[in-house]
Amino acid sequence: MITLSSDFGDPYPAAMKGVLRTHTDAELIDVSHRFPRQDVRAAAFWLTQTLPYFPPATHLVVVDPGVGTERAALVVRAGEHALVGPDNGVLLPAARELGNVEVFEWHYDAPASNTFHGRDVFAPAAAQVHEAGVENIESLDHIEPTDDYVDLALPEADVGATEAAGEVLVVDDFGNVVTNVPGEVLARAGETVAVNGEAVPTARAYAERGPGERLVTVGSHGNVELAVREGRGDDAFGLAPGDAVGLEW
Amino acid sequence: MITLSSDFGDPYPAAMKGVLRTHTDAELIDVSHRFPRQDVRAAAFWLTQTLPYFPPATHLVVVDPGVGTERAALVVRAGEHALVGPDNGVLLPAARELGNVEVFEWHYDAPASNTFHGRDVFAPAAAQVHEAGVENIESLDHIEPTDDYVDLALPEADVGATEAAGEVLVVDDFGNVVTNVPGEVLARAGETVAVNGEAVPTARAYAERGPGERLVTVGSHGNVELAVREGRGDDAFGLAPGDAVGLEW
Amino acid sequence: MITLSSDFGDPYPAAMKGVLRTHTDAELIDVSHRFPRQDVRAAAFWLTQTLPYFPPATHLVVVDPGVGTERAALVVRAGEHALVGPDNGVLLPAARELGNVEVFEWHYDAPASNTFHGRDVFAPAAAQVHEAGVENIESLDHIEPTDDYVDLALPEADVGATEAAGEVLVVDDFGNVVTNVPGEVLARAGETVAVNGEAVPTARAYAERGPGERLVTVGSHGNVELAVREGRGDDAFGLAPGDAVGLEW
Repeated sequence: MITLSSDFGDPYPAAMKGVLRTHTDAELIDVSHRFPRQDVRAAAFWLTQTLPYFPPATHLVVVDPGVGTERAALVVRAGEHALVGPDNGVLLPAARELGNVEVFEWHYDAPASNTFHGRDVFAPAAAQVHEAGVENIESLDHIEPTDDYVDLALPEADVGATEAAGEVLVVDDFGNVVTNVPGEVLARAGETVAVNGEAVPTARAYAERGPGERLVTVGSHGNVELAVREGRGDDAFGLAPGDAVGLEW
Repeated sequence: MITLSSDFGDPYPAAMKGVLRTHTDAELIDVSHRFPRQDVRAAAFWLTQTLPYFPPATHLVVVDPGVGTERAALVVRAGEHALVGPDNGVLLPAARELGNVEVFEWHYDAPASNTFHGRDVFAPAAAQVHEAGVENIESLDHIEPTDDYVDLALPEADVGATEAAGEVLVVDDFGNVVTNVPGEVLARAGETVAVNGEAVPTARAYAERGPGERLVTVGSHGNVELAVREGRGDDAFGLAPGDAVGLEW
Repeated sequence: MITLSSDFGDPYPAAMKGVLRTHTDAELIDVSHRFPRQDVRAAAFWLTQTLPYFPPATHLVVVDPGVGTERAALVVRAGEHALVGPDNGVLLPAARELGNVEVFEWHYDAPASNTFHGRDVFAPAAAQVHEAGVENIESLDHIEPTDDYVDLALPEADVGATEAAGEVLVVDDFGNVVTNVPGEVLARAGETVAVNGEAVPTARAYAERGPGERLVTVGSHGNVELAVREGRGDDAFGLAPGDAVGLEW
């Protein structure tokens, strides 16, 4: 199985699928092609939320603001999974969730296009990795173990006894504001939490609040999430990715 | 085959696919993940327009404003099809189109997340239903026949000899306004129909009108549809889901 | 393998997939269902950019402003590929890229719907073509070779020694402005090119410019592309599909 993740929108992923199909019969499953544009950190976060639910697979990831530059191409072995994508850190947080991490550089010749390495570099690489099998990555041509790669760690919140200082990681399609504050803190909170100084009710589920009302909950990722029932949390809280979020309980 | 329907946008459906893949090799086909958010009636309508075109399959449906509350999880057998989703009525209109309806409750333990039962409750249930086979639903653990479920019927129009009183069911991505008035009424109409009091030309096909012109036609669902050639009917007619539509001919 | 391309958005493609699945077990791969609405030329362009990357396949294409009129349905053999869609020219540019072109008319009876031939005419036709095999198209019922079809050629730019006069073919999801001027001309240019009279830096890759800066590059299609690093070229250049683009170097 090969999963595909990118910020390409439509219809560029189709060219990648065509290329993959010329190299392999592996099942192709889209994770997303609507990751926020050229936002390596957001993509890295979403990959941590999706790839661990898959059985062993090869994961092709192309969020690549450095396309056409000297940035390297990586193949990462993580337990029984393989990840293939640009050397900008996007693969690493999910790889650490998937298992023991070993990083390889994939050496490639100048491809047909300086703007579409997803099609010309990463799709052929992912197909070859998949066909070789994750345990045989070393046997591939173009492959070399490396310690010299761009790492990325999602920012961690600063959690105290009665307060936490974190930030917004992403806003999902529902408008839910996903923070990096661990959901456990809500277990210590009462019926409200102060969010950037303003009291907001806590809730186990969206439906505990009335339509249009704000709430603080634990999202599916296990982090504190700021939401509005049947509405958009990002608008109601005035928050965007990267913004600081202070919680007090 | 397992079809997937939700209002999740991106990338949450990928986690559901990963979970499904850990339980089953069944083919996965997306119906949509862009149903109008938390709009049970719109989802129910679109399911009646899509699921009957599939050969026998298991249909996983998650439009679930009550996620995290006490609402039950259902498995519905409908002819040779099975539907799996929340107990809010969303499954029933399509199930009645698919065949003889039998409803079961799927008992589940508190899942990992109160906000993502699609991943933690419904995907594993759908995989198990699929693997057991629609004729063997009773053999599954956690399953119990039930008569106590939320039903939903799409509203029916009131059709007279020269007029009909209906409403807007959904607006599609083209902006076409889909009503609940049966398309047959246009067979009785002449070259125009009064739509909420204003005369609008009837047409067999969009292309019978000029670009930008309004028309009344029979849509692919068999209902009266209010459209604009190469434009948006919802804007031109000023209509949204739930609005009343009176037709006179 | 059957690929699917349309301007249908959601969820109409699902009904096509259901119909296909009742006729064939072929793998189904989406190219796009978000081609610009009823824009035959844009769809034709994107098909030239995607279908040639696939191994031999049947390509179902429904961008069909003439749906419900007398326009014919076509099956095109192009090398080892088959294309199925409306007779409005949309299939031809990609077909010429794929191989030697032979055009057949697919005769169909009045279908269930005048507005959804994708479901009622083209999906069953594509499934039958796929099942017969591209070399056996002639053996199908309803099939007749034809010379009488709508052709379409993408407009060619007028390229001189120091200038080119072209136009915008499409704008992609990133906002990149794709012109019909061959990318080769940039090899003759220096560090800037005049775009409609205004000097803009050339670049091999987006990342050679600073965030928000404009650039002229060769896109993945091999044509001159007008872009903004981490921004939208269409907004920055004030250009839309069909607009004239004059380059001087």
